[in-house]
Amino acid sequence: MSPEGAPPGAPALGGFALRSADGGARRGTLALEHGLVETPAFMPVGTAATVKGLTPSDLREMGAQIILSNTYHLWLRPGLATVEAAGGLHAFMRWDRPILTDSGGFQVFSLESRRVLDDAGVRFRSHLDGSEHAFTPENVVAFQEALGVDVAMALDVCVKLPASDAEILEAVRRTTLWARRSAAARTRPQTQLFGIVQGGLDEGARARSARELVELDLPGYAIGGLSVGESRADMERAARFTAALLPAGKPRYLMGVGTVRDLLIAVDAGIDLFDCVYPTRCGRNGRALTRSGDLNIRNAVFARDQRPLDAECDCTTCRTFTRAYLSHLFRADEMLGPRLLSYHNLRVLLRLMEDSRTAIEQRRWTTFRDASLAALDRASEGFSSPGLNVGADTDENG
Amino acid sequence: MSPEGAPPGAPALGGFALRSADGGARRGTLALEHGLVETPAFMPVGTAATVKGLTPSDLREMGAQIILSNTYHLWLRPGLATVEAAGGLHAFMRWDRPILTDSGGFQVFSLESRRVLDDAGVRFRSHLDGSEHAFTPENVVAFQEALGVDVAMALDVCVKLPASDAEILEAVRRTTLWARRSAAARTRPQTQLFGIVQGGLDEGARARSARELVELDLPGYAIGGLSVGESRADMERAARFTAALLPAGKPRYLMGVGTVRDLLIAVDAGIDLFDCVYPTRCGRNGRALTRSGDLNIRNAVFARDQRPLDAECDCTTCRTFTRAYLSHLFRADEMLGPRLLSYHNLRVLLRLMEDSRTAIEQRRWTTFRDASLAALDRASEGFSSPGLNVGADTDENG
Repeated sequence: MSPEGAPPGAPALGGFALRSADGGARRGTLALEHGLVETPAFMPVGTAATVKGLTPSDLREMGAQIILSNTYHLWLRPGLATVEAAGGLHAFMRWDRPILTDSGGFQVFSLESRRVLDDAGVRFRSHLDGSEHAFTPENVVAFQEALGVDVAMALDVCVKLPASDAEILEAVRRTTLWARRSAAARTRPQTQLFGIVQGGLDEGARARSARELVELDLPGYAIGGLSVGESRADMERAARFTAALLPAGKPRYLMGVGTVRDLLIAVDAGIDLFDCVYPTRCGRNGRALTRSGDLNIRNAVFARDQRPLDAECDCTTCRTFTRAYLSHLFRADEMLGPRLLSYHNLRVLLRLMEDSRTAIEQRRWTTFRDASLAALDRASEGFSSPGLNVGADTDENG
Repeated sequence: MSPEGAPPGAPALGGFALRSADGGARRGTLALEHGLVETPAFMPVGTAATVKGLTPSDLREMGAQIILSNTYHLWLRPGLATVEAAGGLHAFMRWDRPILTDSGGFQVFSLESRRVLDDAGVRFRSHLDGSEHAFTPENVVAFQEALGVDVAMALDVCVKLPASDAEILEAVRRTTLWARRSAAARTRPQTQLFGIVQGGLDEGARARSARELVELDLPGYAIGGLSVGESRADMERAARFTAALLPAGKPRYLMGVGTVRDLLIAVDAGIDLFDCVYPTRCGRNGRALTRSGDLNIRNAVFARDQRPLDAECDCTTCRTFTRAYLSHLFRADEMLGPRLLSYHNLRVLLRLMEDSRTAIEQRRWTTFRDASLAALDRASEGFSSPGLNVGADTDENG
């Protein structure tokens, strides 16, 4: 099997070709059933089989190569039978490029009071109607395979930080146990199963988790349990440490990261894939991402500003509308505002990854990284770039 | 002056060429500053300088020739200074085709308890913040001219039905008085001022209103005070009676009409222009318009229906997505649903007008009308086509 439209020299389905590296940053190509993903790559989040307010056509136009959707949400609504009746998730939502689904673990562990965990899996109550459900390593793999996604994530145990050493080690033990059962449960070779390294900020626990998962020889590995409230320095240290434990020939995915600054740091740490609700959530709330800091379009200074939102941006929103008009849309609570700003914010991150790929290919990554971080440091819009505490959560409807 | 991009033989700016007629239906061309409008034409409503959820590019793609925006709403937010700073309403919202603005009269009279009326004009309080404002015939013309719109409406007095004869005649008297002052207040020849015929369901009052306004030799006339709660039969009778009183060589605009059935009836009555929030409001609420009746996409029967929303429709929504997916979007309260359904609903009405124009040109209007009305009568989706009580109101955010 080779991926759809794959050029000569592309890796085999599920394969990852490391094209070049510069400093710690990597330039690769991941071959998936619905196409190639050039890395580093940011994955827009389409929680409920839709990237909020945007069409698949919009996503193609802005250069999205792969999107993420959430097992927890799709499980509850519309449910598997509805997606299967459509012929799978791609057909249901009319997106013909790769899709990665998370395992539902992160969402379920965000439900704290509603869930019961043991080695078999996790029982939980729906946040929608209180109905009871259970995730097991096996049924979560089966669910994602039935969706027909390109990448499925193994069910993992995500611990809220700070946590005791015992809690962290228990989460690592169970995550490995579940990853082994997930790997054994696979039936669909077109769906690539990634494992998720846990271990909090404890290097010993991270090392054990990585070692046990790498033994399974999975097609890719994620770094989970970060971007959940720790400092940026802690995130960077843990991501860098963990990335170095993972095989160079497999893609590395840092879950829940999606600010300009964090993406630059994580690419530098050798990460290849990212997702985060940050750009779309900000887009709905009037916060615009730019390469030189965020700005709040509701701010009075923009009410008659005839400049584009972001003079550096090539997106349709910036090429068409003014800050004054966007400011009006948000003040008037007009739904076009969230649509246009979500579009822009995603394009900023996708283009950051495009430029990062070029910089790595041209062996000028460190210069690009330093110049990009300096532009953020110079930002003077009255916002500091947000910390890492803005990552994924139970429900994107924030 | 001739309108932008006008072909040879097009009417002069502000002119209306009656191309053909068939039965009572008319096929015309209205020449405006920002382009020609082929009539009969439906005008999507962009209350606050945005057709909710849609971009100017979407509107061009679906074939919108002209849109309507609301003086009352723009006056309050963002206010004239902001629109003027952008270079006018077209530049502010990035729509380069014609715009008609209403006079604010209808909105202000919907505010009942908040307004005070005399011959000078009407004082009212903002529904947003309670601030005091006053509309006069003169300042409403000046406002619309400053926006740079193609068609401005004269301030009128709209009476809620049922009303006494005295109330109706007083509204007619004041509407004429204000129309004369509006005409005298004009300073911008590129903005065409239309008068609004009032008179409720009283033929005598309608006749007097029409006669007095026609004496002003305005470039177009609207029929106001209908589609505000009366029966469809009453609306049709009053529209037909009033249309016949208006000069054949000027465009006729029936305000607040926008269901498939009402448009067919009104075209048959000799009306050329229409606007209504119905298609976009329905779009936000999950109600889909079709040529064979409306359907509620939230209905359980659609949850796994893999057909397009409307098999007869050529719009992007219908060519891309299934009823099952649209149903999911509305059940999950996803903002993509309102966007996609608003797009479809507007396209249905725009295409109905396109097909009406062709039928009139080809002298088969009555056949087309009867077949179209019969298709609605056969509708079996569990909905009857809504009555006329769904027209414009104070705020489109419904």
